[in-house]
Amino acid sequence: MIKFDNINNETPYLVFRDKYTESVKAKQKNIEAICISSYSSENKEVNARYVNLKIIDGKEFIFFSNYNSPKSIDFNSHNQITALIYWNNINVQIRMKAHIKKTSREFNKAYFAGRDEEKNALAISSEQSNVIDSYKSVQENYEISLENSNLSECPDYWGGFSFTPYYFEFWEGHEKRLNKREAYEDQNGIWIHSFLQP
Amino acid sequence: MIKFDNINNETPYLVFRDKYTESVKAKQKNIEAICISSYSSENKEVNARYVNLKIIDGKEFIFFSNYNSPKSIDFNSHNQITALIYWNNINVQIRMKAHIKKTSREFNKAYFAGRDEEKNALAISSEQSNVIDSYKSVQENYEISLENSNLSECPDYWGGFSFTPYYFEFWEGHEKRLNKREAYEDQNGIWIHSFLQP
Repeated sequence: MIKFDNINNETPYLVFRDKYTESVKAKQKNIEAICISSYSSENKEVNARYVNLKIIDGKEFIFFSNYNSPKSIDFNSHNQITALIYWNNINVQIRMKAHIKKTSREFNKAYFAGRDEEKNALAISSEQSNVIDSYKSVQENYEISLENSNLSECPDYWGGFSFTPYYFEFWEGHEKRLNKREAYEDQNGIWIHSFLQP
Repeated sequence: MIKFDNINNETPYLVFRDKYTESVKAKQKNIEAICISSYSSENKEVNARYVNLKIIDGKEFIFFSNYNSPKSIDFNSHNQITALIYWNNINVQIRMKAHIKKTSREFNKAYFAGRDEEKNALAISSEQSNVIDSYKSVQENYEISLENSNLSECPDYWGGFSFTPYYFEFWEGHEKRLNKREAYEDQNGIWIHSFLQP
């Protein structure tokens, strides 16, 4: 589930919340799964992965990661991303283009301290996306971390990313592929609304 | 459903097929939905959208699109993409990095001629992703196309894209986030296998 904190009341944010509510009612599995696409200007490569969207606070969409992971390195090299959601139970795709930045150390520490300790053990032990000799080693490192770490102390290599969209597109699948597409683009603080061809 | 034509028998392709079979058995909805992330070197922007993966032919993954759409323009400007699948019924993510190119005009014509005419009417009438004054106009254009077009003749602005991965990653969600990640990277024609930290 996504936690909504004082969501912004401009139109695309309200449409987002309405679609989310509809999808919750339709019992969407993994409703917080969101695909984050990034670009590395170092190696000229597009990459993408699912993350769990945890919080929408005002205009900011927030998820958490290891700050040494490949995606974090991508965001440092090119801070523009696209976030894509597909809720298959209501056949809705939401596309957001945004700029992304780290959340504050204070925010990260408070959030980490409130999490489940088993999750924290993994966040501490895992050098996300680094090569390891076997899956068994992943499990062993986790067990060691669970016994030997301070599980409420946020490591400096762990924290949130926050993105604020400058473009929203809501796509609804319809019969015969007559899909309905509506876009909102931020132009100098005003959301310009349009319909797009399917 | 995805059509498999003589799928390549190297390990990552076989793993792909096994996961697909498992997901079909688990009755995954929209199993062919795949997120394609692209980059425009013109406007320095990452973008992403779902498409339907239709065919795997040997080493090539094929989907179809309007050749004047924003994604086609992105592929022309930067021919490397990432394709991402998430089958929530089996909690598996598959990531593929690849280079992408158009399929041949002959292939497109033959494929188009074999499709449902109602789909073709939309492919002919829609200037994909262009702005339009209302959703009603989308429906009207479609009705006109349905009555007045040759529905088996492939327009020159419609066809396939084929991508051939140079990197596969299979991610399986496990309890306590001890997710299992295995990667295969093509190094001079040899697939190098590794385990990645979660």
